[in-house]
Amino acid sequence: MPSASNTSCIELCRVQGDRVAPDRDKVAVEEPLEIQIGFERKGVAAIRSISVTMRTPGNDEELATGFLFGEGLLNRRSELARIERNEGSSNQVRIHLAAGVRFDLKHLERHFYTTSSCGICGKASLEAVHRLLLTGPHANSSLRLSVAAVHSLPSQLRRAQQVFADTGGLHAAALFDTHGNLLAVREDVGRHNAVDKLIGAAWLNGRVPLENRVLFVSGRASFELVQKAARADIPIFAAVGAPSSLAIELARACDLTLLGFVRDRRFNVYSASYRLDGQFENSEATSMA
Amino acid sequence: MPSASNTSCIELCRVQGDRVAPDRDKVAVEEPLEIQIGFERKGVAAIRSISVTMRTPGNDEELATGFLFGEGLLNRRSELARIERNEGSSNQVRIHLAAGVRFDLKHLERHFYTTSSCGICGKASLEAVHRLLLTGPHANSSLRLSVAAVHSLPSQLRRAQQVFADTGGLHAAALFDTHGNLLAVREDVGRHNAVDKLIGAAWLNGRVPLENRVLFVSGRASFELVQKAARADIPIFAAVGAPSSLAIELARACDLTLLGFVRDRRFNVYSASYRLDGQFENSEATSMA
Repeated sequence: MPSASNTSCIELCRVQGDRVAPDRDKVAVEEPLEIQIGFERKGVAAIRSISVTMRTPGNDEELATGFLFGEGLLNRRSELARIERNEGSSNQVRIHLAAGVRFDLKHLERHFYTTSSCGICGKASLEAVHRLLLTGPHANSSLRLSVAAVHSLPSQLRRAQQVFADTGGLHAAALFDTHGNLLAVREDVGRHNAVDKLIGAAWLNGRVPLENRVLFVSGRASFELVQKAARADIPIFAAVGAPSSLAIELARACDLTLLGFVRDRRFNVYSASYRLDGQFENSEATSMA
Repeated sequence: MPSASNTSCIELCRVQGDRVAPDRDKVAVEEPLEIQIGFERKGVAAIRSISVTMRTPGNDEELATGFLFGEGLLNRRSELARIERNEGSSNQVRIHLAAGVRFDLKHLERHFYTTSSCGICGKASLEAVHRLLLTGPHANSSLRLSVAAVHSLPSQLRRAQQVFADTGGLHAAALFDTHGNLLAVREDVGRHNAVDKLIGAAWLNGRVPLENRVLFVSGRASFELVQKAARADIPIFAAVGAPSSLAIELARACDLTLLGFVRDRRFNVYSASYRLDGQFENSEATSMA
């Protein structure tokens, strides 16, 4: 759960209509985190800087491992040897790979070189995106969720979002079981970071694949977030906000259930509606999936 | 302005309480864009892929030039020779640099290699972030804006946000003059893309530095967005949402006026309040800036 250091107190002026008043308020902390990997190459220890991401401090080990898992650099839990924090900097985390774990350094360079921008960090090319849309993994098809459980997600998330309550400035991602019980929540200024922290925590605990879990996010459903869910084998992805066209396309390709605008006892189902108990059996959405 | 192709129509199921109904709706289009640069090295023409970003199609030339300007790869308008679209793909744009424009390819590789993640695409290291905070450019200090003009920003932006109205799924960024008149607006699934498109359009028209302009964004104020504003010499940055701690820190370092929670005739001033006409002259916020 977020700690108090996720917020800082600053001076400001509040304006309401024509009135101006000096005041103090809490804001969400944003700081850069450098993610490095440590590995052996031909018997020689090496360090490589992989990414600098702006994040809210806290759960940095989870963020780093979740990010590397999402990128395909980490797969099985045994591939992680240890996590090292730089004593001189709280904004650096180093993931040491286990001896013998192989990855293609040249591929990695090309890979990151072409993908500096936000959104699809980790997709080396347009072709990779399209390949993913054609051959996405297929999610667990036996899981079911009730409509009532979906309706309960927003209020549960809001109660768990302490930093958001303080600052109005954070995204949240949460895991639920199929009865709609909240299992874990992470907050961050970056919504991709919140998801990386959440999945990273599960991965560190040996709980990935998350084939019996529901992922719920406070913002919109982008391609990138659906991709992170699919990578962790999460079969149901629900968002408070709107989905993008490509998020829907990927969800359909992966047979992942995508829910959008989940709030105020309403939501939309964009794919694989058969996982929702109830009146979906004969609806058109079944054929959409 | 956004065109109709920024949305696509999809089938879905709407759930309200216990009722389920199949329906159709518009969603915001999200597709990858590959940004390439064309240049000469020792007399030989070369192409380099710089970035793949998930964006809403439209204004791609503006997005590419705005992104490269933000990264420091483009500076003066004369450094751009021409923009080429790949006939076979609408998701590729190639920016040809003028003959003789120099940039350090090795630096560029390192630069992008270490910054694959979202947020500070373009900052090569933690040190670079801190250097920026210490030595940020100082914004035009003679510009003034009235409180009434700030109050008018949200309704003007909302009226101009056609795709958001259709889909609920887009971020917007807009430029205003100091009388509060809307000059330009861009929408995108990525808020950094909306700002890149807006600044790219101005750059292509030879209007950068934007030292007499106000930037207003629909979402939160992150470090990255304030950085893009500072790079274009925009002195006032206003956001509908909350600012992060580092966004405030950078704004104060650059003497840039940062406004947050701009909605419902309220807003907060986090830095350089002296640019606001009225009761700010003797308020504490002046000393904060």
